[in-house]
Amino acid sequence: MAVDEKETGFVKEIRKQAGDFPGWYNDVVRKAQLADNSPVAGTMIVRPYGYALWENIRDPLDRLIKQTGHENWYFPALIPLSFLQKEKDHVAGFAPEFQLVTKGGGKDLEEPLVLRPTSETMIATVLRDYVQSYRDLPVLTNQWNNVFRWELKPRFFLRTREFLWQEGHTFHETASEAEQEVAKMLDCYRRIAEEWCAIPVLTGRKSESEKFAGAQYSTAIEGMMMDGKALQMGTSHYFGENFSRAYDLTYTGRSNEQQYPHSTSWGMSTRMVGAVVMAHGDDSGLQLPPRIAPVQVIVVPIFRSDVERTQIASALTGILDALDDIRVKVDWRDERPGFKFNEWELKGVPVRIEIGPRDLASGQVTVVRRLDRAKKPVPLAELQTTIPAMLEHIQEALFKRALEFRKGHTVRLDSLAAMVGFFEESIGFVITPWCGRAEDEQAVKEATMATTRVIDRELPPGSQACAVCGRPATVEVVWGKAY
Amino acid sequence: MAVDEKETGFVKEIRKQAGDFPGWYNDVVRKAQLADNSPVAGTMIVRPYGYALWENIRDPLDRLIKQTGHENWYFPALIPLSFLQKEKDHVAGFAPEFQLVTKGGGKDLEEPLVLRPTSETMIATVLRDYVQSYRDLPVLTNQWNNVFRWELKPRFFLRTREFLWQEGHTFHETASEAEQEVAKMLDCYRRIAEEWCAIPVLTGRKSESEKFAGAQYSTAIEGMMMDGKALQMGTSHYFGENFSRAYDLTYTGRSNEQQYPHSTSWGMSTRMVGAVVMAHGDDSGLQLPPRIAPVQVIVVPIFRSDVERTQIASALTGILDALDDIRVKVDWRDERPGFKFNEWELKGVPVRIEIGPRDLASGQVTVVRRLDRAKKPVPLAELQTTIPAMLEHIQEALFKRALEFRKGHTVRLDSLAAMVGFFEESIGFVITPWCGRAEDEQAVKEATMATTRVIDRELPPGSQACAVCGRPATVEVVWGKAY
Repeated sequence: MAVDEKETGFVKEIRKQAGDFPGWYNDVVRKAQLADNSPVAGTMIVRPYGYALWENIRDPLDRLIKQTGHENWYFPALIPLSFLQKEKDHVAGFAPEFQLVTKGGGKDLEEPLVLRPTSETMIATVLRDYVQSYRDLPVLTNQWNNVFRWELKPRFFLRTREFLWQEGHTFHETASEAEQEVAKMLDCYRRIAEEWCAIPVLTGRKSESEKFAGAQYSTAIEGMMMDGKALQMGTSHYFGENFSRAYDLTYTGRSNEQQYPHSTSWGMSTRMVGAVVMAHGDDSGLQLPPRIAPVQVIVVPIFRSDVERTQIASALTGILDALDDIRVKVDWRDERPGFKFNEWELKGVPVRIEIGPRDLASGQVTVVRRLDRAKKPVPLAELQTTIPAMLEHIQEALFKRALEFRKGHTVRLDSLAAMVGFFEESIGFVITPWCGRAEDEQAVKEATMATTRVIDRELPPGSQACAVCGRPATVEVVWGKAY
Repeated sequence: MAVDEKETGFVKEIRKQAGDFPGWYNDVVRKAQLADNSPVAGTMIVRPYGYALWENIRDPLDRLIKQTGHENWYFPALIPLSFLQKEKDHVAGFAPEFQLVTKGGGKDLEEPLVLRPTSETMIATVLRDYVQSYRDLPVLTNQWNNVFRWELKPRFFLRTREFLWQEGHTFHETASEAEQEVAKMLDCYRRIAEEWCAIPVLTGRKSESEKFAGAQYSTAIEGMMMDGKALQMGTSHYFGENFSRAYDLTYTGRSNEQQYPHSTSWGMSTRMVGAVVMAHGDDSGLQLPPRIAPVQVIVVPIFRSDVERTQIASALTGILDALDDIRVKVDWRDERPGFKFNEWELKGVPVRIEIGPRDLASGQVTVVRRLDRAKKPVPLAELQTTIPAMLEHIQEALFKRALEFRKGHTVRLDSLAAMVGFFEESIGFVITPWCGRAEDEQAVKEATMATTRVIDRELPPGSQACAVCGRPATVEVVWGKAY
């Protein structure tokens, strides 16, 4: 990600989605000014348009997290290496990604500090001072922060050495309460993905080999991008007593015995911005769901003289009043209308209003949807009702289109040979019966590059054979090539 | 800051403000559950009550920053050491505070990365790719993030090795535009301090010796805490071309010549939480201005039987509806009312509503202000108007009280001997004429521990003599002992 060219508002060609999806993605991210290359290897610059999009995803998630009873804390970003080494699976999973602080205040540190890749180890350590009795439970924490993982193949929003996210960490008296928490927060993520980002998701458990380092089990939401690949968009983990035991976090239970709380963690990150790009974009660029679009309506005035300009400016006052609750921007720049149309399409603004002298004369404006470029005249007096309804319609249409795309690219198969054939010729997800063995995942990955995404449901014992090895299947699993 | 005792909701004695202000401050921060000791040296844990208070300061500031035309970006937290070494004054000022990442992904890094103490060097480097012409200016950036400075004497919120803040960085075509920006953002900070946190502030330039490393000049808002000491609560710096030149950031000007933009930076941090504690608190604990209080009204039900409890619960529905726009919390915990009163006073909740069977019988509740413990019955039907008016009144009263406190603890003096006498016997600020020499600041500091806080105004040449050395004074300056 070296800085090799400059993007300062000038719209250039973007690569075609069909021919080069990763190239298309990079072009859209940079030319729509969501993010840009950074002079620091493996990191990115999040530009204002991308950050505003993130704020519009973050804010409703923060509200959901608070409504479900969680409180925001802030824990230190630097974690002593020894903290991270206590949970064996956890350290094994994350150690290759550590970035270490070894010097501070001009001196070598006695113990290196790790830039948090995630904060289970810090929070379990800290909460030992807050949890003594069952009356102190549950503890429902969340924090919004930056985390650091040493990625070798960085990609904008999907995989960078530093990213922004929230991480929830909760501690409960009983396993079942903790498991309900895991499911509840996964459902919050589903709602953010589906209701705000208009991306339908599959939800379910991850396989043993795909679970979080240190978890008893992990659950995830997975969306299908427009290249048929899967993107994990949020995860929610059940730890049982793993972290409590590793960090000696105990409480006095109802029958006066020392117990280990059951804990969970769950996170959603700026990766969601990448998901929105890849789930809705097309060869013209971004396509933003209205509920999260930083600009919901772009107004392009069309005029040839100062007189016309003045007339339009005066008409705009009433229009902006009528659209008071909408995020509207007026593009007065000294550029041709066609240039502006292209640029706001590239930036994925859901609705464009064109207003020129002829429109004014007939008391109307021309309204164009990014969704399908459908164009229609709307009387000024109707804007206040038409525009919000149109935005709502676009939100639903994007979700439906993505859902139909996923359905149209998901097949049920029952043999490895069929899977190989599918992934050679097609894009999308494959659902098969599966016995649950990691060896099968390895075999499928080698033959197709696909991995298990989520376990869809349990199967009645003996009802079906594993598609990969023929042993009795226990679950139905979704396979896909993944980001 | 070792974890030496546990604070899990149990209210213990706090030290007296008069006898041991720093001890009182530490007790209030911990016992009101704003923050706590961290297991990592020099850092703290921000607890939910403290984080909610920070959110209530951060959110109106974010709105002001956006209303004044700035956009939020996100830049990497790790900055190559070489970037930081380009501006000589800047690196000299910050190098002792660096924390260095020297290993990543299991290998030694070719070049150490510095955890950002502030981001001037990163942003000037990045913006070289965005600024080519005068048409690209101004660039008005802001970011909300964590920064890292190796503090040797950490204190909750005031000085920790990691803290949260926003840092604005702007680039302009002309010096005067940049200087207007510096003043405009200082005024935003003044508004947050005065209108939201109810803390009156002095605004002005810092002396040469107190300015930001790399600035042409710095401005600040300074508040007086209840121990008479000064707290710098926000700073806004003018860099002229210093950073543009050091980072070779140029643009093509209107007359087609290569120019250096004039830049600024400005920041406000979680230190504001400490300011609120020290500006309004008393021996009972915190005292929160209503506009930023996480809980504006605490309702304490008083009952002796399940029947009474049920009656109160049912009356509460109507009360909570009437207070729909207010942040209200009902304390149903199984504790004595007196315990609850103390705890919510410690936590600084502005208004308490007590509701018992006798209140209900007469169709009223008892309302108590944290400000002065004034107690009065309020008919249920009047709550909807009385409570918001009372909160507004408390907000103003806190500001006025702090302003009067500052006025009552500020004197004008005209000799070093008088200054020594004042700082030996009294607390507060001293205003004197001053010639501007750093040697005088050194002399005053050695004799009194006080430093210059802000330059109040310029003086007509030859009108007065410097209070310290007798040379002709050029300015009137405010001296105080500072955090």
